[in-house]
Amino acid sequence: MGIFDYHRLCREGKIEVVPTKPVKSVEDLSVSYTPGVGSVAEKIKENNELVYDYTAKGNLVAVITNGTAVLGLGDAGVFASKPVMEGKAVLFKIFADIDVFDIEINEKSPERLAEIISSISPTFGGINLEDIKAPECFVVEKELKKKVEIPVMHDDQWGTATVILAGLYNALYIAGKDLNRVKIVINGAGSSALATAKLLKEVGAQNIFILDSKGLLSREREDLNEFKREFAVDMPVCTLDKVIEDADVFIGLSVGNTLKKKHLLKMSKNPIVFALANPIPEIYPDLAEKIRKDGILATGRSDFKNQINNVLSFPYIFRGALDVRAKDINFHMLKAAAEKIAEIARKKVLDYLKDIYHEEFSFGKDYIIPKPFDRRLLLEVPVAVAEIAVKTGVSQREIDVDTYRKNLKTRLERINKIFPYCSL
Amino acid sequence: MGIFDYHRLCREGKIEVVPTKPVKSVEDLSVSYTPGVGSVAEKIKENNELVYDYTAKGNLVAVITNGTAVLGLGDAGVFASKPVMEGKAVLFKIFADIDVFDIEINEKSPERLAEIISSISPTFGGINLEDIKAPECFVVEKELKKKVEIPVMHDDQWGTATVILAGLYNALYIAGKDLNRVKIVINGAGSSALATAKLLKEVGAQNIFILDSKGLLSREREDLNEFKREFAVDMPVCTLDKVIEDADVFIGLSVGNTLKKKHLLKMSKNPIVFALANPIPEIYPDLAEKIRKDGILATGRSDFKNQINNVLSFPYIFRGALDVRAKDINFHMLKAAAEKIAEIARKKVLDYLKDIYHEEFSFGKDYIIPKPFDRRLLLEVPVAVAEIAVKTGVSQREIDVDTYRKNLKTRLERINKIFPYCSL
Repeated sequence: MGIFDYHRLCREGKIEVVPTKPVKSVEDLSVSYTPGVGSVAEKIKENNELVYDYTAKGNLVAVITNGTAVLGLGDAGVFASKPVMEGKAVLFKIFADIDVFDIEINEKSPERLAEIISSISPTFGGINLEDIKAPECFVVEKELKKKVEIPVMHDDQWGTATVILAGLYNALYIAGKDLNRVKIVINGAGSSALATAKLLKEVGAQNIFILDSKGLLSREREDLNEFKREFAVDMPVCTLDKVIEDADVFIGLSVGNTLKKKHLLKMSKNPIVFALANPIPEIYPDLAEKIRKDGILATGRSDFKNQINNVLSFPYIFRGALDVRAKDINFHMLKAAAEKIAEIARKKVLDYLKDIYHEEFSFGKDYIIPKPFDRRLLLEVPVAVAEIAVKTGVSQREIDVDTYRKNLKTRLERINKIFPYCSL
Repeated sequence: MGIFDYHRLCREGKIEVVPTKPVKSVEDLSVSYTPGVGSVAEKIKENNELVYDYTAKGNLVAVITNGTAVLGLGDAGVFASKPVMEGKAVLFKIFADIDVFDIEINEKSPERLAEIISSISPTFGGINLEDIKAPECFVVEKELKKKVEIPVMHDDQWGTATVILAGLYNALYIAGKDLNRVKIVINGAGSSALATAKLLKEVGAQNIFILDSKGLLSREREDLNEFKREFAVDMPVCTLDKVIEDADVFIGLSVGNTLKKKHLLKMSKNPIVFALANPIPEIYPDLAEKIRKDGILATGRSDFKNQINNVLSFPYIFRGALDVRAKDINFHMLKAAAEKIAEIARKKVLDYLKDIYHEEFSFGKDYIIPKPFDRRLLLEVPVAVAEIAVKTGVSQREIDVDTYRKNLKTRLERINKIFPYCSL
């Protein structure tokens, strides 16, 4: 089955919208639509909050893009982005039982984009921004968060940052290092890089050095926009050759093949290298291992060990946020998600995972982050996210953890029962 | 099972989004999402038209409202409209296998609403406007049709007008009257009334008299907006008492209990009365029949005979339009749909329908319009719509009718296989 056949055969595309309730009889129709639905509409008119009880809103996330930063393709346009957004919809469903409408919007102005999204937001329980280029994405997210009272997250930023933090927690644990003390070099200053820096800083990292295509983000530079300036350091402009000296952590979020042997050799003991450029990483793991046997390696690719993949985070962050009707997604929630993801990797590996992944693995430098099909992610990460959302006041609801766990288990059973129309 | 339970139990709301393709393995994931989907995005970037081959766009309709004219509730707001829009999504799916995202938009300015819808339109293969109040709805539809190259239809206008025309074709046939000659009175001058008048005129009706709350739309009136003015007649302002004299057809699209005995008695021989106000019709059928035994009655209610229900039209108009990638929905397509719907009612009634509807019926004054579950609607109406779309140039595609019929049969088999998650 080729990639193109998969997208086209049996039924074009990867998602469809189906009724959840039976509609086989005249009576069903009169309840699902007119005249019955009128009384439901009337009740919601009186109390808008009831829209969560009687419609799909509370479990519905919009995956929204304007097609300006599509995978490795850059500004590929709204149409090219659609199969990617549909793929995202599939991930939300099969990992967290969240329903997704993918929405491709023909608008490049970040202010107008935020306005458009805000105007359609009553439809949804949450908004996942996707593949919007930097720095516009920062403006869109900021403006949108001001306008709406449902959780908004730009996944390229925060989903990625959260999984990087999760992997880093475990890598540092194995390396015997302390997040507050390590020297961290981030190569790249796009949306995921700046968000990662922000989140790392938020959880205690003190020494972060970021490079864009012109070198270190230094206070001496006058070409930095406000978003990069936030991370400029008191050090003359220089290249990776210099900044990498004694670095404990390298996080690559830019271009492939940029981390050379000479760089690796300059890093400190037990260096942690997250070579996340895709599809060509900053350095290939086999090469890196030859150079630094004491290193801990991760990439963004599924065919190498330690894949830093935001599918480990976004489904569960939204699951938790939706389930307590959080008004926002804050740093506490991201941190709680990262900690729980890291914790799951340290647990005993479940047998079924070895079958799915055709390999043996257990916690250590070759397995620092859980596998996407580890279903404990669904059972545990949302609980951590929801609890901290309530505790930090972005949700006004109470949460009974035992009941919530049962609810998540039901979601999991539901996922296992989904029967896709096409067998292929 | 109560109406509220139906909307809430098992799973809040009435629709969900599911994957159409298997995503059970690591390999599936790499094809459905990264890295595989990248090559699909790239191919679409090179040729945007391919978005129809590799995504759900071509079978995806947006049902869009701003909540300003929700059923009988008026300006009930976006949240109150959501269960209604979800119900519409269900109808599109179970009658025509069309996937629907319901979108509730917080915007009352018709120009801005058209702009917002246009900007999100790349997502969809077609746009169904819904429950937007008049006269704004006319502006939204007109502006939107200028901006986008996918079929747009305001169902309250054209879906309703099409079914009325279908019913009228058969009623006139039974009454032995000619559309070009009859006197038609339309009570109400909202979106569905004006659209019905427009469509009837388009297919040959010559004598149409419309009344709003202030009486006849007369050229003498100076309070008419441009949309009503189009139908103003050369006759002094008067009420229904006068206009109804010798009318052959009464179409009520306004307020219940407005057609009195005195009015009915003034109508011509074999009067046709479509009392479509909901839930209280302009006159109840049993009363009307007592007054005029020679009359042909229809209402908008499912518990009376001859229900004029736009579920008979919109799923199939869009099905046909989508299947030939029509750039618009024109009057020819509506007329073709109406003729085919009327024709289906004149055919032999299929046995399974008697089981579903718990009654016997055959073509005649008590059965002038097909039942919603008559599956010949799906097998035949879209063919008529698609053929005329090609013939009138709103589609550049060719259509092979035999192949298309088989394709529709597959859709029907698909619909019969949809298994809703909740059994209730």
